[in-house]
Amino acid sequence: WWSHVEMGPPDPILGVTEAYKRDTNSKKMNLGVGAYRDDNGKPYVLNCVRKAEAMIASKKMDKEYLPIGGLADFTRASAELALGENSEAFKSGRYVTVQGISGTGSLRIGANFLQRFFKASRDVYLPKPSWGNHTPIFRDAGMQLQAYRYYDPKTCSLDFSGAMDDISKIPEKSIILLHACAHNPTGVDPRQEQWKELAATVKKRNLLVYFDMAYQGFASGDINRDAWAVRYFIEQGINIVLSQSFAKNMGLYGERAGAFTVICSDPDEAKRVESQLKILIRPMYSNPPVNGARIASMILNTPDLRKEWLTEVKGMADRIISMRTQLVSNLKKEGSSHNWQHITDQIGMFCFTGLKPEQVERLIKEFSVYMTKDGRISVAGVTSGNVGYLAHAIHQVTK
Amino acid sequence: WWSHVEMGPPDPILGVTEAYKRDTNSKKMNLGVGAYRDDNGKPYVLNCVRKAEAMIASKKMDKEYLPIGGLADFTRASAELALGENSEAFKSGRYVTVQGISGTGSLRIGANFLQRFFKASRDVYLPKPSWGNHTPIFRDAGMQLQAYRYYDPKTCSLDFSGAMDDISKIPEKSIILLHACAHNPTGVDPRQEQWKELAATVKKRNLLVYFDMAYQGFASGDINRDAWAVRYFIEQGINIVLSQSFAKNMGLYGERAGAFTVICSDPDEAKRVESQLKILIRPMYSNPPVNGARIASMILNTPDLRKEWLTEVKGMADRIISMRTQLVSNLKKEGSSHNWQHITDQIGMFCFTGLKPEQVERLIKEFSVYMTKDGRISVAGVTSGNVGYLAHAIHQVTK
Ligand SMILES: O=C(O)[C@@H](O)Cc1ccc(O)cc1
Ligand SMILES: O=C(O)[C@@H](O)Cc1ccc(O)cc1
Repeated sequence: WWSHVEMGPPDPILGVTEAYKRDTNSKKMNLGVGAYRDDNGKPYVLNCVRKAEAMIASKKMDKEYLPIGGLADFTRASAELALGENSEAFKSGRYVTVQGISGTGSLRIGANFLQRFFKASRDVYLPKPSWGNHTPIFRDAGMQLQAYRYYDPKTCSLDFSGAMDDISKIPEKSIILLHACAHNPTGVDPRQEQWKELAATVKKRNLLVYFDMAYQGFASGDINRDAWAVRYFIEQGINIVLSQSFAKNMGLYGERAGAFTVICSDPDEAKRVESQLKILIRPMYSNPPVNGARIASMILNTPDLRKEWLTEVKGMADRIISMRTQLVSNLKKEGSSHNWQHITDQIGMFCFTGLKPEQVERLIKEFSVYMTKDGRISVAGVTSGNVGYLAHAIHQVTK
Repeated sequence: WWSHVEMGPPDPILGVTEAYKRDTNSKKMNLGVGAYRDDNGKPYVLNCVRKAEAMIASKKMDKEYLPIGGLADFTRASAELALGENSEAFKSGRYVTVQGISGTGSLRIGANFLQRFFKASRDVYLPKPSWGNHTPIFRDAGMQLQAYRYYDPKTCSLDFSGAMDDISKIPEKSIILLHACAHNPTGVDPRQEQWKELAATVKKRNLLVYFDMAYQGFASGDINRDAWAVRYFIEQGINIVLSQSFAKNMGLYGERAGAFTVICSDPDEAKRVESQLKILIRPMYSNPPVNGARIASMILNTPDLRKEWLTEVKGMADRIISMRTQLVSNLKKEGSSHNWQHITDQIGMFCFTGLKPEQVERLIKEFSVYMTKDGRISVAGVTSGNVGYLAHAIHQVTK
């Protein structure tokens, strides 16, 4: 039946890990996938997660199906985390949050929902560049991809006037995707005054805003500060849709905890939207996995654990910031005369180095330093032990 | 944005549980969803599962992303469980198995794969009746649903000649879905000689066979016996596709462990199919949840645990069979003059009682005995403690 099926290319991000694993160089570095590492370069399971797991295990809980929309204690806490406890939209109940299969699965629920119920347009506008998976997520859901200017390769920073220019010309009632914080892959976010201008334009053009929030806490180390744009837009009366991931900020990667939220006009509309989200989810996977949602719910809803979690998120964010500084100072030590200020100006897990594809190729081939072809590095993979080697390698291919 | 969105109906199966939960009658019974209960009516977490969980916890494993196709130790063991360790297809490597979000998620991967790569036809033929979720799973993937006769309401058993008649007229190179064992909702399976005739017809018509195996071990108590049809078809040179669920036979419901398999002509074709499955999965949810796969893998790959598991599966199957007998004898005790033999003839988790919608409605309203409208009961919800009450209630609405 399948002789005509052709070999497809590996995932541009997850494929990097596969290549890295095959490399036998003891100095090899995996700066591809965005997964946090401690300063020993080891995967890091948060203490609050281990504690939550122990609490769950001691309860000898059953393994029954969750409801189609997921664990209620988790989805409520997830919405509260994004919207804020004092949010009018949250308190009034004019929202619906369903559990999704981490960030991607939540994005896909949203994409399918838009395909079925957003009648005004098929067009989803992504920043240039955006996370590579955004394109197939929306395309496979039957939507069409468009783009707006976002990043300026000349300055390695935000092209704000280009973005405003493009966004102000997007046809009314189209969909625009915004990264809530810690833009992936560029590490470049708008400042608060810029977000305000964006919100005004989006409102004027009557665009549906889809926020992707995969790094809450990872940009500034403060979950509230990182949710500022999401909350500001809602306060401006912009009824957004939102995907959340707990992969990075709780280190729950393989547990697949995430959520999709629709802000509605009123609680009744939210009930109707919820009923239709369930009808979409049921033939996708019936109901979501329980374990990650239990862990996240335990952390968010247990004051002591939540406090410990906030400290640990900040710890991860701070280590990344410190690695950015060390990388720049090591590049100077190597004698690099380039301006590397964007490495410390950019925020979140990723740095968009500005390295060219040929330079990336040399880094992989000659130094076993693995990253995506676009020159993105996951700063979370840099440690005090290898930052010198990385600076050396980068200097060798850029001098 | 969403004022036009209308309230959608609840899930016909999972909605039963929601209604049941709202009922305050202390005698209420939930015979809707297919979830095993012990003889105290309590959710049952298998001993082998608790042991596997303890072993996993003691290893302090990380929570990194699984590969897109899932945990390799799990998918290999899952394929072996279905195909048999001596299977030529298994041993030669001319198959690919990817992890899915339990049965539904695995079915949906398959449906999406067929939509993209099965060029000959959009038509999927389901037995009449089939599991309610099959229709939206294939429809939402862009396929068209057709049906073949399967169940004879007059005898409450298999309409084999009707099935053969319909199947022999299915256009060549269409897709036919077969329940591998413990047909849901009817509890009616073909006998081995009937499977042989079915295989011959399917081969003559050159149909693509999609096996849904959600109850391996639950029909006969023996996992090999329950996989007989799947293995026979493959031995006949029929390259099937297959979905598996570990929800029921390992009691992993909310953990969402499942698998999707394509039998290919050769290992190279399998590699190519695998690459395309990954391209489908990545924009659905990137990678599957780790916890259920770790538990299932630990059980399948640890000889002691596997042995204990096989005993526990048989224990569950046996308790269900005993409840069927007790239900029939209690109906006789109540003085029912109907022929209830189909209750003991049918196998697996479900019994298709033959109760009419009005009778089901009375059972729910007057007796708080909850089931789906089609008269299906989950025998797994019956216990020594409530089988008398159930028989009484059924007798009251059928006398
Ligand atoms: O961009 C990244 O590296 C993270 O978002 C991790 C990731 C990458 C690929 C993928 O399919 C899912 C997550
Ligand atoms: O038919 C049943 O009851 C089982 O297959 C359980 C089930 C029911 C509905 C659903 O969306 C997923 C599983």
